[in-house]
Amino acid sequence: MAKIPVGILGATGMVGQQYITLLNDHPWFEVRYVAASPRSAGKKYAEAVSGRWHLAKTFAPHIGGLMVEDANDVSRAVAAFKKGECSFVFSALEMGKDETRALEDAYAAEGIPVISNASAHRWTPDVPVLIAEINPDHTDIIPIQKKARGWDRGFIAVKPNCSIQSYMKPIHALAQAGYPAQRIIVSTMQAISGAGYPGVPSLDMIDNIVPYIGGEEEKSEKEPLKIFGSIENGVIKNADFPKISAHCNRVPVTDGHTACINLEFAAKKPSLDEIKAVWYAYKGLPQTADLPMAPKQPIIYREEENRPQPRKDRDADKGMAVVIGRLRPCNVFDIRFTALSHNTVRGAAGGGILNAELLKHKGYLS
Amino acid sequence: MAKIPVGILGATGMVGQQYITLLNDHPWFEVRYVAASPRSAGKKYAEAVSGRWHLAKTFAPHIGGLMVEDANDVSRAVAAFKKGECSFVFSALEMGKDETRALEDAYAAEGIPVISNASAHRWTPDVPVLIAEINPDHTDIIPIQKKARGWDRGFIAVKPNCSIQSYMKPIHALAQAGYPAQRIIVSTMQAISGAGYPGVPSLDMIDNIVPYIGGEEEKSEKEPLKIFGSIENGVIKNADFPKISAHCNRVPVTDGHTACINLEFAAKKPSLDEIKAVWYAYKGLPQTADLPMAPKQPIIYREEENRPQPRKDRDADKGMAVVIGRLRPCNVFDIRFTALSHNTVRGAAGGGILNAELLKHKGYLS
Amino acid sequence: MAKIPVGILGATGMVGQQYITLLNDHPWFEVRYVAASPRSAGKKYAEAVSGRWHLAKTFAPHIGGLMVEDANDVSRAVAAFKKGECSFVFSALEMGKDETRALEDAYAAEGIPVISNASAHRWTPDVPVLIAEINPDHTDIIPIQKKARGWDRGFIAVKPNCSIQSYMKPIHALAQAGYPAQRIIVSTMQAISGAGYPGVPSLDMIDNIVPYIGGEEEKSEKEPLKIFGSIENGVIKNADFPKISAHCNRVPVTDGHTACINLEFAAKKPSLDEIKAVWYAYKGLPQTADLPMAPKQPIIYREEENRPQPRKDRDADKGMAVVIGRLRPCNVFDIRFTALSHNTVRGAAGGGILNAELLKHKGYLS
Amino acid sequence: MAKIPVGILGATGMVGQQYITLLNDHPWFEVRYVAASPRSAGKKYAEAVSGRWHLAKTFAPHIGGLMVEDANDVSRAVAAFKKGECSFVFSALEMGKDETRALEDAYAAEGIPVISNASAHRWTPDVPVLIAEINPDHTDIIPIQKKARGWDRGFIAVKPNCSIQSYMKPIHALAQAGYPAQRIIVSTMQAISGAGYPGVPSLDMIDNIVPYIGGEEEKSEKEPLKIFGSIENGVIKNADFPKISAHCNRVPVTDGHTACINLEFAAKKPSLDEIKAVWYAYKGLPQTADLPMAPKQPIIYREEENRPQPRKDRDADKGMAVVIGRLRPCNVFDIRFTALSHNTVRGAAGGGILNAELLKHKGYLS
Repeated sequence: MAKIPVGILGATGMVGQQYITLLNDHPWFEVRYVAASPRSAGKKYAEAVSGRWHLAKTFAPHIGGLMVEDANDVSRAVAAFKKGECSFVFSALEMGKDETRALEDAYAAEGIPVISNASAHRWTPDVPVLIAEINPDHTDIIPIQKKARGWDRGFIAVKPNCSIQSYMKPIHALAQAGYPAQRIIVSTMQAISGAGYPGVPSLDMIDNIVPYIGGEEEKSEKEPLKIFGSIENGVIKNADFPKISAHCNRVPVTDGHTACINLEFAAKKPSLDEIKAVWYAYKGLPQTADLPMAPKQPIIYREEENRPQPRKDRDADKGMAVVIGRLRPCNVFDIRFTALSHNTVRGAAGGGILNAELLKHKGYLS
Repeated sequence: MAKIPVGILGATGMVGQQYITLLNDHPWFEVRYVAASPRSAGKKYAEAVSGRWHLAKTFAPHIGGLMVEDANDVSRAVAAFKKGECSFVFSALEMGKDETRALEDAYAAEGIPVISNASAHRWTPDVPVLIAEINPDHTDIIPIQKKARGWDRGFIAVKPNCSIQSYMKPIHALAQAGYPAQRIIVSTMQAISGAGYPGVPSLDMIDNIVPYIGGEEEKSEKEPLKIFGSIENGVIKNADFPKISAHCNRVPVTDGHTACINLEFAAKKPSLDEIKAVWYAYKGLPQTADLPMAPKQPIIYREEENRPQPRKDRDADKGMAVVIGRLRPCNVFDIRFTALSHNTVRGAAGGGILNAELLKHKGYLS
Repeated sequence: MAKIPVGILGATGMVGQQYITLLNDHPWFEVRYVAASPRSAGKKYAEAVSGRWHLAKTFAPHIGGLMVEDANDVSRAVAAFKKGECSFVFSALEMGKDETRALEDAYAAEGIPVISNASAHRWTPDVPVLIAEINPDHTDIIPIQKKARGWDRGFIAVKPNCSIQSYMKPIHALAQAGYPAQRIIVSTMQAISGAGYPGVPSLDMIDNIVPYIGGEEEKSEKEPLKIFGSIENGVIKNADFPKISAHCNRVPVTDGHTACINLEFAAKKPSLDEIKAVWYAYKGLPQTADLPMAPKQPIIYREEENRPQPRKDRDADKGMAVVIGRLRPCNVFDIRFTALSHNTVRGAAGGGILNAELLKHKGYLS
Repeated sequence: MAKIPVGILGATGMVGQQYITLLNDHPWFEVRYVAASPRSAGKKYAEAVSGRWHLAKTFAPHIGGLMVEDANDVSRAVAAFKKGECSFVFSALEMGKDETRALEDAYAAEGIPVISNASAHRWTPDVPVLIAEINPDHTDIIPIQKKARGWDRGFIAVKPNCSIQSYMKPIHALAQAGYPAQRIIVSTMQAISGAGYPGVPSLDMIDNIVPYIGGEEEKSEKEPLKIFGSIENGVIKNADFPKISAHCNRVPVTDGHTACINLEFAAKKPSLDEIKAVWYAYKGLPQTADLPMAPKQPIIYREEENRPQPRKDRDADKGMAVVIGRLRPCNVFDIRFTALSHNTVRGAAGGGILNAELLKHKGYLS
């Protein structure tokens, strides 16, 4: 089977680099189009990232030879599409919100589906915010979206913020098992790669933490409600629960966001053993459909009292699994636990690829 | 006025070193007796800490020449007392809980008051756990304690765990102003110096955090209730509120524990501006009595959105003030904020010295 | 072809864990015997390392079920040998030098070859210190060693210290090309994993460096002379050159030793371009014999002005390649450059495995 | 005695902040004029640095109320001079080299002496590069400089790069004692504060080092020769020796540059004990004239085998002393040792203040 040719917008940035390496040997997709800011446009990819490559893993040789296009010039992607070199794009754009939204719209309008990492379209009512295990049915909004915009082939689907990835699946697993959460208080310790490069200055991260990340707490509190929502009257209607209150902190860790969670159930309260059993058994469409990027076991529970830890657990199942530990009763709510997710893999490029696999599986990409 | 001669038990350890430097120029107290484990006993202090001194500040020259005594041998302290070289001791012992309790008892029984940093006696019902601004009246238990034990001159007073120092004073300030807290969820990011030396291995602290500190969450949840308690029938009776649920994490920071707090009031809910006004105006006995180690302003509120930060705020007012920031409404409880306190100063040696000043002010030490 | 069953002495330690994971899918060797200190003996391997596992990669399931034997009890290994479960051992023992030497001798005497990581036998004159690309012919001492000791099947071969791995191959490449070094001044910045676990306290490694590593400078200066030596009269006679002067520093990096090198040639001085060409073309027996653990290109030169960097370059070619950068003229000697090597892979377990592959290739192991 | 009013150019930057705090209680100088980039101009100082203050120590209240002037507008400084608010300026400008040179010239031409931290004028032949203990007599070039430029009251004096501060004084001490150095190989591990703010990205400094700092090695090799030079024919003629070869590395340390030094003497070779005695006895004009910012003992030698360490030694004698350790014979040259200096105090603002004190002592400032 011929691989589907894909493009990366923002290909030279931190998340773009993750897309490139994670797609090195992908069975379905092949990177044949790379676009970035005008500063990089016109250079070979290898040259454009020289001195700015941040990962231990490197890109495949043929990627190094691709010419970087100007991401602002949609006509280049359309030309690539016509040559069979760009069937859809992953958007890892790092520009302003309004600019990003307009540019992603332009790609979709020109027939290029956009699987986006950016936050620009997360609150557009007919754009699905997908976590492939949780709300794969939200893809049903895509035909509605296309029709409403008069788009033929293109559409937009996005993934949520990296900060919530570690606790959305455990909460969803419990809700599915009949134990929905009512209220959640969460405090995160987030990795510096989440801020891109140059990102967080080292003077803020040696012998220090920063108890603030602009916009992150609002995203952490609102995006889950859309993901847990349902399609009604052609838009995604948010869920009312769980109510979430978040503290988001930046800590001196390269990759892997850790979250400390206190949870109050809406009604029935499972035992700790039931909870672990629910998490252990949890599977979603990515697992049953055996999508290539899907973790075999989306939630890994570790019994050691001092886990999860970013350096040891972030790469679990190629960085796509959530690792949980320290489940125990809460003095104030019902339970508390600690959860970890790789922010640039599961929380960014890996999650985007899994979404694309879901969309292909459902027939929206080809 | 002649200074009161004091001894330090555990003088060569991390907290012992802090006591030594903080007392370098103390107006009331003078270190004239140092004791540690048998390994150090018999050496000059300078020699005993050579290669193991962890602070940027060094000890006064005359301290370097003191002979280190065996902390297990109470008779040495008694002899020093008789020579006018040790009127009372600060205990920074780092041995097992039962051993510590027995040894502190032995000093008190021999007439040497013990101002302790150790956790051994925190749950002894007639031993006060003091934060000088909050419960200075708990010193009233000391005559009862002495009488019950048949102790003449000696007694034991302790300070609480370093993890709670940053939020106890803001909570107390609000309670005093008529806004007691009902429930608190807290997540801490604690410095490595809290674990002593060698303490936390560097392999756990480079590009990593550890979401667990043995025993710390229990202390964080229970000790506040004793501090907020009252003396009844010759013992300290715990308060019933606030209920506290804590996550305690170790992060790669040398000094300064940061806490993210979510708080629900019991009844009346002040506005954010009222809260800041309450914190700004907060003073306790250490301030009104102008105790030497007391911070001028026990609670410093910073308006910047990204403070407090350990490296920048831990040394506020010689490390004795609590620095707070990010006060904002909570989606789930009433308010949330971030608080910081220097764990080896306010949370250990500095807090112990302030307690001794309080006790001297009240006439229990001379 | 059936795999050769191997044992790991010190299997639960930092280097032992690296051996276990690097041998997960080895085409020639299979771990079937694990031994450690009496504290771990009698436990399943999974249990013995629970809470003490330091790597992101985990061990294969069948390893978790192996019973840990007491490494001090050679008879257990002999029994395993007889059952076909331990043809030779990798020694990653972490005990005292004399103890290690005696114990490694005992294994060899009982017919179990020892491929060692430990420093105990590095100065035994008839024990080869192997870097597989540099002195594969030093294996010729093994028959002499066996004969001298009256050993039948067993023998001892060791690898050198991790601190020298990054510059030995570039120096050797130049010497082979006719440009031997006369004098070398080197300053290293070494990773904390080199000290094992718990190893370096975090209080020494947050916002700090330690300009001293016990014994490391002596090893760095002397071991190269044995590796560059030749077999004469049944012993390895050290080379006289290059004279080396080393500063060894500990820095807050998890893995990867970096070295800054100044080099004076003995006679002929190549141009910088010649040097790069020599390094690029460098191959040794591991490459020509296509040994499984051999890096394809033992020396990788990077042209970027700010490389090599530990986090980005240590994993080059599965952690087995040396990465070099910043080659430039020296104001005082002839050239200077910076070199990097993964200390627990190339510098420890990976180097040990490559030595075993070399020995099997030469017929010393089966 | 009335204090001399001084101005700070670049007052809001990293080094400017250090000047502000170090001058908080200076006996001779008082900050009454602050200037920075147009972005900050027109704001109160407290407002201009809000959210950008990097030090643990804060500025004096009256500084917070000063209006920040535009550093490009020399007329503002002239007006301040006329009002008696700016007798001379410390330049901590962070603009391009040519721009800085032109602007410093403009201040001097308008009658405002410039004591500069910037590198722009270090190679101007009639501008002295001062380390107050080493070449205080180079101030003799100032009258020549003024005359050549036709400047009346203004002049320019600069300090050298922070990277060389730790080894210049020990080398000078030995040269003065009759043991001049012939050749030096040095490898530095430099703190991130040297790069200003935002400066080095945290992704380069967590679990990593960067073996390159732009321009730093050239400065390290050339500036010492000017400092060791002599005034001949109205310019400073460089010394020919020592020849220096430097590797400059960036490491995850907030403050304090560490250097590993190998040194070859030109002729006579002192014993290690003689060297320590020379360093112990070393005093310069700052010490004999008792200048306020002068360290009592410019060179502190520590006998512990693992010192100096940045976190423990950088603040020695208010950050103005050099701390040395590990003096030992060198296998290749004569001796080697490790030296440390606080880069933003001794190496920047503190060194600048000491230079101003020297110039006042010599009558060049009033």
